[in-house]
Amino acid sequence: MSVHIGIVTVSDRASQGTYEDRSGPAIREWLKLALSVPWQEHYRLIPDEPARIEATLRELSDETGCCLVVTTGGTGPARRDVTPEATEAVCAKMLPGFGELMRQVSLHSVPTAILSRQTAGIRERTLILNLPGKPAAIAECLSAVFPAVPYCIDLIEGPRLETDPDFVKAFRPKAG
Amino acid sequence: MSVHIGIVTVSDRASQGTYEDRSGPAIREWLKLALSVPWQEHYRLIPDEPARIEATLRELSDETGCCLVVTTGGTGPARRDVTPEATEAVCAKMLPGFGELMRQVSLHSVPTAILSRQTAGIRERTLILNLPGKPAAIAECLSAVFPAVPYCIDLIEGPRLETDPDFVKAFRPKAG
Amino acid sequence: MSVHIGIVTVSDRASQGTYEDRSGPAIREWLKLALSVPWQEHYRLIPDEPARIEATLRELSDETGCCLVVTTGGTGPARRDVTPEATEAVCAKMLPGFGELMRQVSLHSVPTAILSRQTAGIRERTLILNLPGKPAAIAECLSAVFPAVPYCIDLIEGPRLETDPDFVKAFRPKAG
Repeated sequence: MSVHIGIVTVSDRASQGTYEDRSGPAIREWLKLALSVPWQEHYRLIPDEPARIEATLRELSDETGCCLVVTTGGTGPARRDVTPEATEAVCAKMLPGFGELMRQVSLHSVPTAILSRQTAGIRERTLILNLPGKPAAIAECLSAVFPAVPYCIDLIEGPRLETDPDFVKAFRPKAG
Repeated sequence: MSVHIGIVTVSDRASQGTYEDRSGPAIREWLKLALSVPWQEHYRLIPDEPARIEATLRELSDETGCCLVVTTGGTGPARRDVTPEATEAVCAKMLPGFGELMRQVSLHSVPTAILSRQTAGIRERTLILNLPGKPAAIAECLSAVFPAVPYCIDLIEGPRLETDPDFVKAFRPKAG
Repeated sequence: MSVHIGIVTVSDRASQGTYEDRSGPAIREWLKLALSVPWQEHYRLIPDEPARIEATLRELSDETGCCLVVTTGGTGPARRDVTPEATEAVCAKMLPGFGELMRQVSLHSVPTAILSRQTAGIRERTLILNLPGKPAAIAECLSAVFPAVPYCIDLIEGPRLETDPDFVKAFRPKAG
């Protein structure tokens, strides 16, 4: 089973070309260092539109067959920030522990980490993971939660992910 | 008012006899050491079926009159894991602090603690508490949250629970 | 843009005059020490009635134009505790990080902090923040989350709040 991973940058301004997307590339670079299995990237740059975000997540899950879709942007309290709601709308179950841990880790850097509404959820055989929009927070958040990602994907019957243990160590608990 | 406590193991395989339920007994043994008041156990072993879980929780709450129902199993990200959703479906209000604390404590042991979606909620005069399925995590999670359980049951007008303070210390805040 | 702040004490007994509201005044005193910009208080003392709480939150947001509404009371597991549900009913988006951090901080004082269901959410240009009912916990919770409040209100296009940095330091992250 080949490994397809979606990277979705949600940003009105980056998708209009007002500035360059630096968050999507930051996720790509991090995953390149983390994963020791061959994988194929599916990148999307879209505006903060609920219907558009939901359609993109559904496409990457149902058609492209991504086992993991990582979003960046749209997790704050502003009017246009709707990524967590769009994620919840397409997921069958939510994993609140991801958001809790990412906020807890980001709180060591900035007290405004509590404004981030990021979450994670499962759609069929796809784990959808929201990251904050700021490039600086991406490595911090991925490093915190990624040790649990390969086992999560095992549990939803996805492909077996392996990581470079010197960069990030995947953890798979023993049965019992 | 006598103390009735439900222990619900949610597991396809244990309920089919594929393996023996070790989680339900682990909860029983922990509660025996924790509680210093007489109590009666109501044990159920059921498959990961939403309707069945909901019916069992309603029965133990409404008919058996349990002040506390502790579930184990079905809290992960896998397709058949639906215990938190079934719990939410029968509860009038949710207590997110239980799941947050249990995940936080389990994170000291395993990075995959963030995959556990366990929660707690109130149905009439019953506190329903999800624990993870692995026996190893049960004592860890119960020890973390149980100090708050007797006072919670006071607040929902249930019977007064007392604990062995050498094993786990119940906390009841003073008014004001 | 002038700064309007709502303080809502939700309590059956205080609103009937059975005892004096000490929580609303505790919020007022804390905000007086915290804020270095002129602000106007809008105080309400209401019973634990969902419709009444929702109407009060809507009024303070839509008509009075408060950028911040702080509630106290009604966040526990008891039958009449419905403030978080009323808050969620009037908010377009929820900010789970506020409740997580407040519970985490209160856990250092009392293990029953996990019983508090307090949350925060956004209604148009208003941040609604639930605090627990006990006056002792109010300063503790406000001190924990308030550093993120001025930036949150920036993001929802409200007035610029400034604080006395010797009392509580507002944090505004740099872009990027």
